[in-house]
Amino acid sequence: MNLILLFDEDFLDDQRVRLTGRRLAHVTNVHRATVGDALVVGRLNGRIGSGEVTRLDDEALELRVTLDRDPPPPLPLTLILALPRPKVLNRVIASATSLGVKRIVLINAWRVEKSYWKSPKMTDENLLLQRVLGLEQARDTMLPSIEIARLFRPFVESFAPRGRALVAHPTGEHECPRDVRDEVTLAIGPEGGFIAQEVKSLESAGFEVVTLGERILRVETAVAALIARLY
Amino acid sequence: MNLILLFDEDFLDDQRVRLTGRRLAHVTNVHRATVGDALVVGRLNGRIGSGEVTRLDDEALELRVTLDRDPPPPLPLTLILALPRPKVLNRVIASATSLGVKRIVLINAWRVEKSYWKSPKMTDENLLLQRVLGLEQARDTMLPSIEIARLFRPFVESFAPRGRALVAHPTGEHECPRDVRDEVTLAIGPEGGFIAQEVKSLESAGFEVVTLGERILRVETAVAALIARLY
Repeated sequence: MNLILLFDEDFLDDQRVRLTGRRLAHVTNVHRATVGDALVVGRLNGRIGSGEVTRLDDEALELRVTLDRDPPPPLPLTLILALPRPKVLNRVIASATSLGVKRIVLINAWRVEKSYWKSPKMTDENLLLQRVLGLEQARDTMLPSIEIARLFRPFVESFAPRGRALVAHPTGEHECPRDVRDEVTLAIGPEGGFIAQEVKSLESAGFEVVTLGERILRVETAVAALIARLY
Repeated sequence: MNLILLFDEDFLDDQRVRLTGRRLAHVTNVHRATVGDALVVGRLNGRIGSGEVTRLDDEALELRVTLDRDPPPPLPLTLILALPRPKVLNRVIASATSLGVKRIVLINAWRVEKSYWKSPKMTDENLLLQRVLGLEQARDTMLPSIEIARLFRPFVESFAPRGRALVAHPTGEHECPRDVRDEVTLAIGPEGGFIAQEVKSLESAGFEVVTLGERILRVETAVAALIARLY
């Protein structure tokens, strides 16, 4: 937790917050802070600054906060992900968030097992927590949106990609472009990849098939590698 | 497992292998192969090809193999990693291996907890398994080496970096270079980063301090992002 993310309901007044639960435990056990220490804080979807510890005991952490700078710039990227295995989902959401992605779309694909959609990892509460962990990691405050598309074909047929649309696939003829900086929509398949028909549908919808090379990467590695290459 | 990695001891003769244990279970339960199927195989530190299933039952998988092509090219990169938390270590080793890293050096640093060195994850057996998993993921056969340096200062003072030497640190003044292609030695700190003195030692040893930006990334995300940017 490189930044303590503050929510509206944490504020006692304009400058004071009271925290309990996970954040209290983390500041007590990991930061090992004491009264008077200054911690990096940020307000959800707002500014970043410093919080001076004014109270820290078993019940609550209180901070006097000054929010005086902007969070890091967002990436102009829409990340479309075939729903990963539950075990991987948490890490991918947190990792993409830490990299600055602000729009995530989880879609179905042939090789996504139906059971993944019913996983407890798919609750609103967990999807929010993973994004919060990603923001806290990267010292960001701007919460990414997560959209869910349970049907592949209607999604692809109706989806209007923002900017340049790319689908990462090991068989792509072109290398993934570097240092694009502009708006990109990037689609990444499930383990085992999109099937040929899905790649064709994405191509019909305007996606270019690009590759990082002949190596097949795990989803979480591919997400970080592709984003680092694009921006 | 996008490739079944074969070891010398698996070979019954030049063309036939017999597999048990983890690989038998995977081919039975995940690939759901049957006699006659062709699977992608590769010989450890050797060539890649195809294996035709000639026997598959509860006791063993036998393949007739033809090895006719080279594995993907290695990255000319030495990756120096402050020893990550045991929970993260497996993923980082497998992920770096899947990206094509062939030389990994695990070093100590101020913010590496002593207990990490005694973790069961640090056994030769586990470190080999994680590299094998990375090779199988990426359809590679060339096993990376892992060196261990339990003392930071003697390591840095005696280490001769190959090619351009970089240390990734959020306070770096220069952006991490892109698309270098040449030999690079890349050092990545622990959670919380190298301390200032360690960064100074690395600079004295010829390392340039580079950054991916103001976002602080988890080690596993940083490894993939930095490598994708360099190559």
